[in-house]
Amino acid sequence: MATPDTEVLARLAAVLEARKGADPDVSYVAKLYGKGLDAILKKVGEEATETVMAAKDGEPERLVHEIADLWFHCLVLLAHQGLGPQPVLDELDRRFGLSGLEEHARRAG
Amino acid sequence: MATPDTEVLARLAAVLEARKGADPDVSYVAKLYGKGLDAILKKVGEEATETVMAAKDGEPERLVHEIADLWFHCLVLLAHQGLGPQPVLDELDRRFGLSGLEEHARRAG
Amino acid sequence: MATPDTEVLARLAAVLEARKGADPDVSYVAKLYGKGLDAILKKVGEEATETVMAAKDGEPERLVHEIADLWFHCLVLLAHQGLGPQPVLDELDRRFGLSGLEEHARRAG
Amino acid sequence: MATPDTEVLARLAAVLEARKGADPDVSYVAKLYGKGLDAILKKVGEEATETVMAAKDGEPERLVHEIADLWFHCLVLLAHQGLGPQPVLDELDRRFGLSGLEEHARRAG
Repeated sequence: MATPDTEVLARLAAVLEARKGADPDVSYVAKLYGKGLDAILKKVGEEATETVMAAKDGEPERLVHEIADLWFHCLVLLAHQGLGPQPVLDELDRRFGLSGLEEHARRAG
Repeated sequence: MATPDTEVLARLAAVLEARKGADPDVSYVAKLYGKGLDAILKKVGEEATETVMAAKDGEPERLVHEIADLWFHCLVLLAHQGLGPQPVLDELDRRFGLSGLEEHARRAG
Repeated sequence: MATPDTEVLARLAAVLEARKGADPDVSYVAKLYGKGLDAILKKVGEEATETVMAAKDGEPERLVHEIADLWFHCLVLLAHQGLGPQPVLDELDRRFGLSGLEEHARRAG
Repeated sequence: MATPDTEVLARLAAVLEARKGADPDVSYVAKLYGKGLDAILKKVGEEATETVMAAKDGEPERLVHEIADLWFHCLVLLAHQGLGPQPVLDELDRRFGLSGLEEHARRAG
C-alpha cells in the first residue's frame, strides 16, 4: 500500500525539525538553516522562477518537480520560523474549505 | 471536531476542478483560468515575492497567509495543467519520506 | 534627431523625483509611492516574472517591454529610497567597465 | 575625469557581445551563455529576490549592488537574445520621456 499522501507534509515537517541539530556538513537542510533566513528566501524565489519556466515549457513532470522544490523550501522557511505546515493548511481550509472558494469569500464579505 | 487538515489539499483540488465550469463573473478561479497560463504564473511569482517580504518583516501570521496564497495558486496552476497535488506530495515523499532527507539522497547517489 | 538614449535614465529619475509631490489620483507613480515600499517591491517581483515569461515565449518586443517595466520599477524603488540610477551605473562601471568583466574581477581577486 | 556614466550600458553591452566567443572556463558570462536561456532567467529571478530583500533590510549600498546585479543579468539576457540595452532605453523614453510619465499615458489613452 502506498504511503498515505495526506501525511507527507506532517512527516516532512518532523524531519525538518529534527534537522535543526544536524551537522551542516552532511545535511543540506542544516546547512541552509546555518546560512540563515536570506539564503532560505533566495531558494523560495529561485524555485518560484523555476516553476514558472517549467510551466512555460509545458513539461508536467518538471512542473511537479519544481513545485515540490518550492513547497519543500516553504516548509524549510516555516520550520526556520518555528512554524509547521498546519497553520497554512488551516488557512487554506478556513478560506476555501467548507463551502467552496468564492461562496465563502462572498458570504464573509 | 476540526476538519482533518490532511485532506485539505485534496478537497481544495476537487473544488478547483469543479470551478473549471464556473462563471468567470462570480468565480475568482474561473476568471483566472479564463485569463490563461501567464496570468496564473504571474500570481505564483507575486505570492512568492509577498512570502519573501512577510518573512523579512518577521510577521508569522502574514507569512502563513502568504504561503497559503502561494500554495493556492500552485494548486490552480496544477489544475490548469490537468494535475492535482498528489504527484507533488508523491515527489516530496519519494525524495524525503521514508529515510529522511539527506540519507535518501546519499543512498540514491 | 532622436533623443540621446544615454540620458534617458537620468531624465526619467528627475521625473520620478518630481512625482513625489504629485496627486496620487492622477499620477501612477505618486500612487505607488503612497502605497509604500511593499507595493513597489511587489511590482519589481511581478515585472521580473513577466520578463522570464516573455523570454520563454521568445518574443523580443515583449521582452524589451517587460525589461523596461522592470527597470522602471527599479528606478521608482531607488527614488523611494532617496537614490537615483547613478550609483547603479557606477557599480556596473566599477565592476565591468575599464578592463572587461572577468579580467577586472580576477585582478581584484 | 570620471567615465561618463551615460555610456556604461552601451559599453557593457559591447563587452557582453564580445564574451560570446570567450572561454567558459575563464569567463563567467561565457559560462552562463553556455548553460543557456533557463540559467540566465534563473539569475534574473534570483537577483530580483535579492533586490527585494536588500530593500526590506533598508541597506542602500546593498540595494544598489543588487539592482546592478539584476540589470547586469538583464543585459546578459538581452545579449543572449541578440538584443542590446538601446531598445529598452527607447521604450522608457517613448513612454516617459518627452512629456512626463502619466501625461503621456493619458494622452495616448
